[in-house]
Amino acid sequence: MGLEINAVYLSYVVHVLAVAGAVMVLVWNIHFRGGLAWESSNKNLIFNVHPVLMLIGLVIMGGEAAIVSYKALPFKKAEKKLIHLILHAIALILGIIGIYMAFKNHNESGLANLYSLHSWIGIGVIVLYGVQWIYGFLVFFYPGGTGDLRKESLPWHVLFGMFVYILAVANSALGFLEKLTFLESSGIDKYGSEAFLVNFTAIIAVLYGTFVLLTALSRAPAEDHHSYSAI
Amino acid sequence: MGLEINAVYLSYVVHVLAVAGAVMVLVWNIHFRGGLAWESSNKNLIFNVHPVLMLIGLVIMGGEAAIVSYKALPFKKAEKKLIHLILHAIALILGIIGIYMAFKNHNESGLANLYSLHSWIGIGVIVLYGVQWIYGFLVFFYPGGTGDLRKESLPWHVLFGMFVYILAVANSALGFLEKLTFLESSGIDKYGSEAFLVNFTAIIAVLYGTFVLLTALSRAPAEDHHSYSAI
Ligand code: HEM
Ligand code: HEM
Repeated sequence: MGLEINAVYLSYVVHVLAVAGAVMVLVWNIHFRGGLAWESSNKNLIFNVHPVLMLIGLVIMGGEAAIVSYKALPFKKAEKKLIHLILHAIALILGIIGIYMAFKNHNESGLANLYSLHSWIGIGVIVLYGVQWIYGFLVFFYPGGTGDLRKESLPWHVLFGMFVYILAVANSALGFLEKLTFLESSGIDKYGSEAFLVNFTAIIAVLYGTFVLLTALSRAPAEDHHSYSAI
Repeated sequence: MGLEINAVYLSYVVHVLAVAGAVMVLVWNIHFRGGLAWESSNKNLIFNVHPVLMLIGLVIMGGEAAIVSYKALPFKKAEKKLIHLILHAIALILGIIGIYMAFKNHNESGLANLYSLHSWIGIGVIVLYGVQWIYGFLVFFYPGGTGDLRKESLPWHVLFGMFVYILAVANSALGFLEKLTFLESSGIDKYGSEAFLVNFTAIIAVLYGTFVLLTALSRAPAEDHHSYSAI
């Protein structure tokens, strides 16, 4: 498609929201929740790595990966493709480590695994993200499909990518809500500064996701008809 | 755009998921949660109307409204438009009543209002849904904009409609998660049948929303270029 907006301008909004979201999730976990740790007798610090990696890694990196190369950088097509797939690989790996930390916390604290809607959708998101990456790698990069297969796959690649991305953003909102609900039932103030910080972080994440999708749907400067915005 | 799928077939999937979701949310609230009531000394029964009206009214009716007229019915354009706007009006009104019931329960039980991410996004959803309806009414129905204004508005109407709809579906998932988290912290089994019912209702809602969007993006039989799928 291609909305009649310049994708480069939209991508500036994306970057600003990215920085805001990253700072907010770090302030929350480091200042309010006591910090981050790989190993600790305070298992909460292990958990804290989870929201940080999921938001900064999967959602923010993943969003930048989706758009920055094709919509905002002045490189050649082959280079943009490489940047796209490498950034997505980093997002995927950070996401997998982030989920591992949620399980590590649960296991070391003796809590149940995979009982919540958030965890179920979370497994769905990471599996679909991985499938999307592998399919894209095989068809568009190496060994690469035939011209017809690429052409037919592209709109589905974009559409499925958007679908998984929306699920990822929505699932991080579910995570923020769930964690804050736990904290509020163990006593923190529903209208206190921590509660506002967490809720606004989730709102920033939703806005970020919205602008990522808008950028993806917009016209890159000098975009040709066989380019990325095939839907 | 127009994915190369016949929208009519997709719309059958939408209807099946609609029935499944409606039955599940009713079974949950009537069988497991004790029933629905407008007035009652048991304030939980007042709350129970909220998920029922939000899912069946706003999400399911709203989804059918969005697609059924333009993608699956064999009427003339003016008739389809009327069906579209009436069904959306019903969805909006049921949504407003559903939100009213959440506030009624909070007020009569002495609980705080509007502290959660779910409630904030919920207010956003209903306001944006109302704005979208009014703009669509004025520009496409009565008094109706100029040809140019209609033409320029249509892709944005579709895009903004999809955005609000995704938010509505995501927000119902937030609601299911939040309510189930409350119930689990007051003792119901994390792996019990009620927990599974609620989580699967949310999953069905997400699938329903996905198929609604797919249908909207697909080719209606005999669709012309000035028709609804302007994006
Ligand atoms: C799209 C990004 C995310 C994905 C894919 C994801 C995935 C997961 C998964 C698979 C689990 C289950 C771990 C287990 O059962 O041991 C989990 C747990 C959890 N996550 Fe996330 N998460 C994401 C973002 C977030 C964010 C941003 C937060 C904010 C605090 C969060 C909060 C939680 C909480 C509180 C739990 C433990 C309770 C539960 O199992 O639901 N998550 N997450
Ligand atoms: C898109 C659909 C929905 C919208 C727009 C919406 C909107 C709202 C709003 C505005 C409130 C605040 C009421 C107050 O502060 O007094 C609320 C409360 C609530 N809703 Fe929903 N709702 C939706 C769907 C659902 C669903 C499907 C559930 C499932 C059980 C649910 C569960 C709750 C719960 C537990 C509360 C009370 C706690 C809180 O304020 O967050 N909602 N909803």
